[in-house]
Amino acid sequence: MKIDGTHYRSIWREPSGEVRIIDQRWLPHELRIVPLVTRADFADAIRDMWVRGAPLIGATAAYGVAVQMAADPSDASLRETYDLLHETRPTAINLKWALDEMTRALHPLRPELRADAAFARAAEICDEDVEINRRIGLHGLEIIREIAAKKGGGRVNLLTHCNAGWLATVDWGTATSPIYHALENGIDVHVFVDETRPRNQGAQLTSWELNSHGVSHDLIVDNAGGHLMQHGEIDLVIVGTDRTTASGDVCNKIGTYLKALAARANDVPFYVALPSPTIDWTVSDGLREIPIEERNGEEVTHVQGRDAEGRIVSVQISPDGTPARNPAFDVTPADLVTGLITERGVARADAAALAAMFPDLAGR
Amino acid sequence: MKIDGTHYRSIWREPSGEVRIIDQRWLPHELRIVPLVTRADFADAIRDMWVRGAPLIGATAAYGVAVQMAADPSDASLRETYDLLHETRPTAINLKWALDEMTRALHPLRPELRADAAFARAAEICDEDVEINRRIGLHGLEIIREIAAKKGGGRVNLLTHCNAGWLATVDWGTATSPIYHALENGIDVHVFVDETRPRNQGAQLTSWELNSHGVSHDLIVDNAGGHLMQHGEIDLVIVGTDRTTASGDVCNKIGTYLKALAARANDVPFYVALPSPTIDWTVSDGLREIPIEERNGEEVTHVQGRDAEGRIVSVQISPDGTPARNPAFDVTPADLVTGLITERGVARADAAALAAMFPDLAGR
Repeated sequence: MKIDGTHYRSIWREPSGEVRIIDQRWLPHELRIVPLVTRADFADAIRDMWVRGAPLIGATAAYGVAVQMAADPSDASLRETYDLLHETRPTAINLKWALDEMTRALHPLRPELRADAAFARAAEICDEDVEINRRIGLHGLEIIREIAAKKGGGRVNLLTHCNAGWLATVDWGTATSPIYHALENGIDVHVFVDETRPRNQGAQLTSWELNSHGVSHDLIVDNAGGHLMQHGEIDLVIVGTDRTTASGDVCNKIGTYLKALAARANDVPFYVALPSPTIDWTVSDGLREIPIEERNGEEVTHVQGRDAEGRIVSVQISPDGTPARNPAFDVTPADLVTGLITERGVARADAAALAAMFPDLAGR
Repeated sequence: MKIDGTHYRSIWREPSGEVRIIDQRWLPHELRIVPLVTRADFADAIRDMWVRGAPLIGATAAYGVAVQMAADPSDASLRETYDLLHETRPTAINLKWALDEMTRALHPLRPELRADAAFARAAEICDEDVEINRRIGLHGLEIIREIAAKKGGGRVNLLTHCNAGWLATVDWGTATSPIYHALENGIDVHVFVDETRPRNQGAQLTSWELNSHGVSHDLIVDNAGGHLMQHGEIDLVIVGTDRTTASGDVCNKIGTYLKALAARANDVPFYVALPSPTIDWTVSDGLREIPIEERNGEEVTHVQGRDAEGRIVSVQISPDGTPARNPAFDVTPADLVTGLITERGVARADAAALAAMFPDLAGR
């Protein structure tokens, strides 16, 4: 999407052949674009979260393989690069998918053909992600269009949680894609952005995206959404997801469940935007079967931001030695979800509807 | 309650006659005890939030009048002190109540009798607050005791939001009083403390109280409570309130409503602890009739804490110029409230039950 009028993706190849990314560690305070030159650069970028978001991690790994194939296209080099990149963030499902995909495409080829094929396949992986998110946006656009029509063309107010934006993907984002499409179609949209403690991805990334592209928005604390819904200030909620079960239970950033409860209590539609690879067809009871990562308590006791001198620092908000619990995700039961916005259309959040929309994937 | 083994109130008079408070602006990072000597000191302390919490503001104002009566007990002095202190935080209901109470007690007296009478009445106001909170604690204790019995003596896990602790009152606190009483009665209690963005009163004050007194606790982000309830990790919720209607609707710090929804969805009892002066008998529909203060957006875009060099600083978490909405309170409808823990007992959250418990106050 756009940064001050210029279109960007979160990863791209320059005409010179150089691969570049936005180093997201400095957002929202500084836009730093950096080249990734060696496979070690790619490993660092993924491991140290210069890039984050499952689709973008996959795309970055794909280009990492391509860069290495240009330097050394041997079997040993391909195998070592797989291992090096795979161990950077071992739990990200798209990372393994992208590395498997590159290996499948490259391994059968003679080494001297691998570099060109690798850059081509990496570019395709990026384009495929963009196309999936574009389609999610078009399906979501219809939902927003209907609400706008009901309001007689009045402003449509959305709430989102965390960052399911273009910075987490190659472009468009998932939850944000319908918003960008609505804007392009002349619909008056306003976004309430949950700051999303503990890591503040809403405050740091989603606010920055919307601000850079020129989308009307307000940052709010995670506590405020229920109150706004009680007073009719939210027309719909759209969030992303890290994993959705075959029965439509939605695992997403901690706090999503509280917003889904408030949406139900106040008759506000609650949608989840997701590319189909995010559906885990092997799991049906999200609450009992999805393990929830417990992260370091320091994310709760400390907050990162920019101080008065412009330095990025971490400040402690609680007494020394305060114990903290830090579950990173929660599960919203399917019955609280109005619909799942996928690249093929909007599905009811239940096993039958999902299987009917993805007969080629369901049950695998 | 206790700080490292020594009992404190939040305001007290030394044997020398000097009035002292805990300057809460430095908590949790530093315990600063300061004397308040002139009426200007008292006005500063209330206005600049060295003290906060409705009962403590009232008690501080009462002592402010007393100190001034010792310096100048004239009618003009009494009137000027009323005005000076009243305008420090004009919306705090206990502030006006305490000043009216002091005026009622002092105005009929000859000036030379006013100083002693003022100190005596201020001390009574403090003691009355302590007694009300002690009684709230005893009634809440019975609820905790029942849950402990059901769990066969196992640990009782509570969730609280914001700071309704002894730092907001003279001693015991409201929501925390049952917790301290449970501890004194040998019940194994553990408290999950919502950090309570945007001002982090949970992280800064409730964590400090519990840590200082030696109560087992964990700090969590405001997003986490629903997940913990889904997994059976919370046995009951107790929160305070800024204003409760005659029909039992509860106005409290923003985010309380989301926890009440999660408690209902997961069959977790949700209690509100309140002294009867917090009941507004003139209002019945909390959602429509209670105006919600919208505070400065900078509380959302910035977070205060201690940096690596030990300085208390404010850091910006969002892009420059990010617009923010900052409603400070929300209203939890009575039907989500299991019971109201008052100084006279636990009332159902409805008009009939409240009127039956407070026949002398209801309808006034």
